[in-house]
Amino acid sequence: MDGSPLLAVRPASTDEVAAVVRACAAAGVPITARGAGSGLVGGPVPLGGGVVLSLDRLDHLEIDTANLCAVAGAGVVTGRLQEAAAAEGLMYPPDPASVDICTIGGNVACNSGGMSCLKYGVTADYVTGMTVVLADGSVLELGGKLRKRASGYRLMSLFIGSEGTLGIVTDVTLKLVPRPRSRSTALVGYRSIEDAAEGVRRLLVSGHFPSALELMDANALRLVAQELPSGFEPGLAALLIVEQDGSDQQQVVGQLAEIVELLAGADNRVAQSEAEREGIWRARRRFGHVLIAMRKNFFAEDVAVPISQIPEMTRRFTALADRLGITIATVGHMGDGNLHPTIVFSDEQRNLVGPAAAQIFRDALELGGSISAEHGLGALKRDYAELEHGARALDVMRGLKSMFDPRGLLNPHKVCPESPADDGFLERQPGWGAKLASGRDRSELGA
Amino acid sequence: MDGSPLLAVRPASTDEVAAVVRACAAAGVPITARGAGSGLVGGPVPLGGGVVLSLDRLDHLEIDTANLCAVAGAGVVTGRLQEAAAAEGLMYPPDPASVDICTIGGNVACNSGGMSCLKYGVTADYVTGMTVVLADGSVLELGGKLRKRASGYRLMSLFIGSEGTLGIVTDVTLKLVPRPRSRSTALVGYRSIEDAAEGVRRLLVSGHFPSALELMDANALRLVAQELPSGFEPGLAALLIVEQDGSDQQQVVGQLAEIVELLAGADNRVAQSEAEREGIWRARRRFGHVLIAMRKNFFAEDVAVPISQIPEMTRRFTALADRLGITIATVGHMGDGNLHPTIVFSDEQRNLVGPAAAQIFRDALELGGSISAEHGLGALKRDYAELEHGARALDVMRGLKSMFDPRGLLNPHKVCPESPADDGFLERQPGWGAKLASGRDRSELGA
Repeated sequence: MDGSPLLAVRPASTDEVAAVVRACAAAGVPITARGAGSGLVGGPVPLGGGVVLSLDRLDHLEIDTANLCAVAGAGVVTGRLQEAAAAEGLMYPPDPASVDICTIGGNVACNSGGMSCLKYGVTADYVTGMTVVLADGSVLELGGKLRKRASGYRLMSLFIGSEGTLGIVTDVTLKLVPRPRSRSTALVGYRSIEDAAEGVRRLLVSGHFPSALELMDANALRLVAQELPSGFEPGLAALLIVEQDGSDQQQVVGQLAEIVELLAGADNRVAQSEAEREGIWRARRRFGHVLIAMRKNFFAEDVAVPISQIPEMTRRFTALADRLGITIATVGHMGDGNLHPTIVFSDEQRNLVGPAAAQIFRDALELGGSISAEHGLGALKRDYAELEHGARALDVMRGLKSMFDPRGLLNPHKVCPESPADDGFLERQPGWGAKLASGRDRSELGA
Repeated sequence: MDGSPLLAVRPASTDEVAAVVRACAAAGVPITARGAGSGLVGGPVPLGGGVVLSLDRLDHLEIDTANLCAVAGAGVVTGRLQEAAAAEGLMYPPDPASVDICTIGGNVACNSGGMSCLKYGVTADYVTGMTVVLADGSVLELGGKLRKRASGYRLMSLFIGSEGTLGIVTDVTLKLVPRPRSRSTALVGYRSIEDAAEGVRRLLVSGHFPSALELMDANALRLVAQELPSGFEPGLAALLIVEQDGSDQQQVVGQLAEIVELLAGADNRVAQSEAEREGIWRARRRFGHVLIAMRKNFFAEDVAVPISQIPEMTRRFTALADRLGITIATVGHMGDGNLHPTIVFSDEQRNLVGPAAAQIFRDALELGGSISAEHGLGALKRDYAELEHGARALDVMRGLKSMFDPRGLLNPHKVCPESPADDGFLERQPGWGAKLASGRDRSELGA
């Protein structure tokens, strides 16, 4: 499992994908589909060797305003879809941080999320149709431009999030929704994560439904301190970026004012202009840039916990960092319980990263969470899947894999673990050494 | 396949359900799970005989405000869940018309929808955890109080909408969302369905995201004419009931005024009070009551089409009714392309109903739609599943059924068709005669 392919192919249509898959099936050669390669868990690394199949040329895109939907090839960059929808007054809500480079096919493979999931949901909530090439090269057309269906088993749902191990999705039909014309954004600071969590709970039971609720902890804040408004309360333990959207600017501003009052922070700042709004989001984006510019290394994780467990989870991050002498800076999507703890470490601390990540996985699971909220399992987290799902559910997943891909040729060694979970999982990853040096891998941080 | 069970059991816990399933598995006896029995397609009719397993005693309910979720036994009545969530400032959005009697377990089995799906989605969009008893009596715990997950195959999605044929869901964890504090409602009338469709398109690309967009056609309107406001434009071809919700009454009223302007009907009436709002919804609910009180019989259908095809679909309803000399009155969820054409017929016209429904199915499929938007396939529509999904997808569905239930004991003869589609499908249904006389079946009309 060194992750080197025999060859790479770039088919331009579903028929060409099917022809490649048929040829591979005939020869018994593994085949690993690949989107933009912007994922953070090594999903498209061809652990079984064989053929890497890039979907980048499947980039046809249709916005169908009469049916409020888009039909997109797997290779369409998500940001391009968002812009094309916006030009027609519509919105495709899922919004991964890598939106400018990641593709819809990759988003479907990983059931990607982003910052707008609390209000708008994840990729799976928008897929109404797809074309899938199965392991024998046959083509399945599922669903269509329909917004609602209760007929038969929900096959599309199986392919979503399956990381190309059950079939290769070549195009998708996606629901679009009305595009909000206005947004308003604020910073709200807290002296403890507990205060932030209580503020969020109070807000959400009050009838307000914000479009974003982003969390940054004290360590993340320290990295972006220079981007905070001048005079903003120093020494905060947590910061929320809260956004509201809607059809009318005055109404959105009024709602945000009420939201900020309910959040009851130690300090707050409501953006008074588009420039100030941009400035607030710049502070959030700055987090990734600072990490890349540092002389230290970093390793970004992605876990989910029930939202009431966010304070406990962040306490455990702090305890873990103190114990190992590393830094863990956390950003996350507060309304989803989705945290991105980022381990910052020196070259000498490299051997601590695996044990630290393993502890983060175990803690998330102990708190009723998941080892992956929106990145997938890939090569990296696969070994921990059984701890999360249990042996019985893993058996069922293996049964599905056998049914759809009896010879195990589609993205081998992914999703269903072959090794038991242990702290050394990271050392077994191809490219773990190379990854540290890769600007590309680093630039997609902070989804 | 006469639909008579050997016996009925009412277990009170997942363990008891598992024990019943194990006993049935040992004896090779079919087992059909049953919610409230309020479905309209015969899903819980035990076509294979054997044991009927009612889930009504699994009625535990927990609202967890700290995690914005509910944990509900399969037997919890959906309306009870909605009320319990509302009491905590939260909302469970899926809203089938049978909400006062149907259960969460049944909603999950059929992936139920309702009137709020355009903005809020369907049952599947809210399930984050479930307990399932498999065909061998083993118990699978899936997901939990997590709002986001991208880890492993999405097994829960398979059980949702599977009508109890792959496993028996005994409890579910459901996402809740902030409950809007205000609603405002209007009637907008049109001289043609085309005008209504164009109004809806114009509205949705303008940035407004209404919480309901209900359609009634001319025949449906005739049945409820006395409930319309006095002086309302007579002879309309279509009526929309449009609702907006939000956190602030004044804002919601302002948004609805803009929405009504964009919808640009031939006449409109905005409710100026809660009493007027209730009156508007009474007109919609009146549709079912009038049908029940009539001396004629009726048969309610449920299809979905891409929303741009709504005018063509309704033209085909009219042509079909004219050809057969029956009446088809249609209500539907306009923003989802979900239409409920209701065939009204005399005793002498009884033999026309099967061919009429079959033609409606064929028309929906020809327009890129589905034979079931939110009711499921049940006993009634099963034969038409292959026409909708195609032979290859049906093969995959049969493979899944074999994998999860190799001996075919769970709700036999459902979802995967055994008979080819034909106009006589209705005559093969157990209780087709009895159904016409049943007040119970009639009272759940107009989902």
